[in-house]
Amino acid sequence: MEHEKYMRRCFELARRATGLVSPNPLVGSLLVKDGNLISEGWHREFGSPHAEAEALNQAGAESAGCDLYCNLEPCSHTNKKTPPCVPHIIGSGIKRVVISNRDPNPDVNGEGILKLREAGIEVIEGILEDEGRELNKFFFHFITKRTPYVTVKIAQTLDGKITSCEGKQTRITGVDALRDVHKLRNSYDAVLVGSKTVSIDDPQLNVRRINGRNPIRIVLDCELNLPLDRKIFNSRDPEKTWVFTGKNNDAERIEKLKASGVRVFEFDSDGANCIGICHILKFLGEQNIASLLIEGGAGTFTKFLSANQFDELIVYHAPLFFARGVTAILEPFETVLKPWSVRILGKDTKTVFKKEN
Amino acid sequence: MEHEKYMRRCFELARRATGLVSPNPLVGSLLVKDGNLISEGWHREFGSPHAEAEALNQAGAESAGCDLYCNLEPCSHTNKKTPPCVPHIIGSGIKRVVISNRDPNPDVNGEGILKLREAGIEVIEGILEDEGRELNKFFFHFITKRTPYVTVKIAQTLDGKITSCEGKQTRITGVDALRDVHKLRNSYDAVLVGSKTVSIDDPQLNVRRINGRNPIRIVLDCELNLPLDRKIFNSRDPEKTWVFTGKNNDAERIEKLKASGVRVFEFDSDGANCIGICHILKFLGEQNIASLLIEGGAGTFTKFLSANQFDELIVYHAPLFFARGVTAILEPFETVLKPWSVRILGKDTKTVFKKEN
Repeated sequence: MEHEKYMRRCFELARRATGLVSPNPLVGSLLVKDGNLISEGWHREFGSPHAEAEALNQAGAESAGCDLYCNLEPCSHTNKKTPPCVPHIIGSGIKRVVISNRDPNPDVNGEGILKLREAGIEVIEGILEDEGRELNKFFFHFITKRTPYVTVKIAQTLDGKITSCEGKQTRITGVDALRDVHKLRNSYDAVLVGSKTVSIDDPQLNVRRINGRNPIRIVLDCELNLPLDRKIFNSRDPEKTWVFTGKNNDAERIEKLKASGVRVFEFDSDGANCIGICHILKFLGEQNIASLLIEGGAGTFTKFLSANQFDELIVYHAPLFFARGVTAILEPFETVLKPWSVRILGKDTKTVFKKEN
Repeated sequence: MEHEKYMRRCFELARRATGLVSPNPLVGSLLVKDGNLISEGWHREFGSPHAEAEALNQAGAESAGCDLYCNLEPCSHTNKKTPPCVPHIIGSGIKRVVISNRDPNPDVNGEGILKLREAGIEVIEGILEDEGRELNKFFFHFITKRTPYVTVKIAQTLDGKITSCEGKQTRITGVDALRDVHKLRNSYDAVLVGSKTVSIDDPQLNVRRINGRNPIRIVLDCELNLPLDRKIFNSRDPEKTWVFTGKNNDAERIEKLKASGVRVFEFDSDGANCIGICHILKFLGEQNIASLLIEGGAGTFTKFLSANQFDELIVYHAPLFFARGVTAILEPFETVLKPWSVRILGKDTKTVFKKEN
């Protein structure tokens, strides 16, 4: 119980840096002596000191004899921005280390635990392991696969409609669900939409309803013919709008977009799609994009789902039946899903599905 | 906290009689003295002693000086099967009475509380009032409206399909959701389906997956042309199969059904429907049917929803997208719904919606 209480606090601390440390993991750490909390720390942003270093530095000489809690295995490798934590922990006289997850990073993966134990420090692992893995699902995916964790997010009626009429934007969900979407945007490195969504809905795809930072906004515009007056081409942070298009499109238009600060990337087709999904995901991985939120519309949802190129599906349900209109998914897909969590969000519900392993 | 703990226990006791006391309410009662539980009782079946009487009888002389907990206001009226509880409580020397809900029965409705207070007994009301009202939602509805509480229950895919192909039965949900439906059947007085559902799915509409009692099974067979080999016409309790049909149908067929033990009722049309929904609900009220579960199919769902003749909607969602097939609801309806509860049931989810007041 004591271990779980402190580990939950590590998760809380870690979450403070949501959206700021990618592709690094979210990490919180704290020092406890004789049941008293001595210090706390968290990894605040990409490149800043690790959570353990923060907690140790804050405690100073008091670190000696403390238990150190940390949701992720402390690092032992040196090929990165910050000095490794394991020597720091050993040097500080820490008595015991309690962690949630091993670091799946091939450079660590048990090595940190081994070195701590070799130095005579007791290590307890696996505290709230599932919660720890969920907290860092983006990192765990990215560090092993080198492509982003992909979530498809659908807001629909109970009869699966995302709009009441083809070509017309329909507000489906209420303010609580919208706020939740902005929370998602704040936590994902990038969001992605198809060109129809930009053309019809003209979304901003930024974070407004909560305090947070904007994700990269990706639009798939195969033939590069979206009107340039769309909001995502006229944002305050144009470098965060990335247009993914096919090869051999209008060079003048590309120059115009680039001149406005927008970034344009040309992709090979994969046969079924003018822009290959696998090419996209590989490219995003190379850009250190560890998480991607697919925001619509039906064609784009269907592409990612039917190609089984996703890890999670979030469905917001508004208690409406349109009977007519456009459904979110245009063809059946084979992937077996299981419900992961459900909750009421104001006048709507939110269900998270993951793939059955 | 003490009050809530004991009231929760009253709810537990009350629930033991689920399906057995309708149209009476589910009631549990217990006696407590100096923090010690003295006795417990519940209303076991229609016509049997009330919960308070059970608890008082069990405690005997020990009742004097006790607190009596009961989820519903004790009765003071005499026009019913059992003697009124209020005189019994007063005569037993009870010191204090703690209840959840006032009895909305016009014959009681505060009268019991008044008489207790006049006798010098302290009465505390409103403990876990919402839970109490939910426990007895059928009773609360029936006693004031004299028609059954109507729940529409849909099992569908995430794109709102109840079958992958018109005219073909498709298993949608898993065993946990099916078990939950049998629990519902055990708690509702009657279930109702359209003739297409009987023709295509040939359901038994009984309680098999849990221990319980079968509800009345109603089939709307407007033109009275369902094949007589269907399972609901050949059950072990044929008197529980009720066929609702229009006027002037084949008299010989009616006789055949009646000879097999099935009950047949002829209804007036209401213009839109061969069998008028309002006529049905009024008739069921007259039969003391306090709760009705609509189990399908699309035409029947749509009838009750678009006529706003329902109180609750339950949607079981299987994490599938069929893309084609039949949707549960064939036309939009105006009633504003709000989510009431959500949970994961094995591989599916269950969401309960109620009407916005």
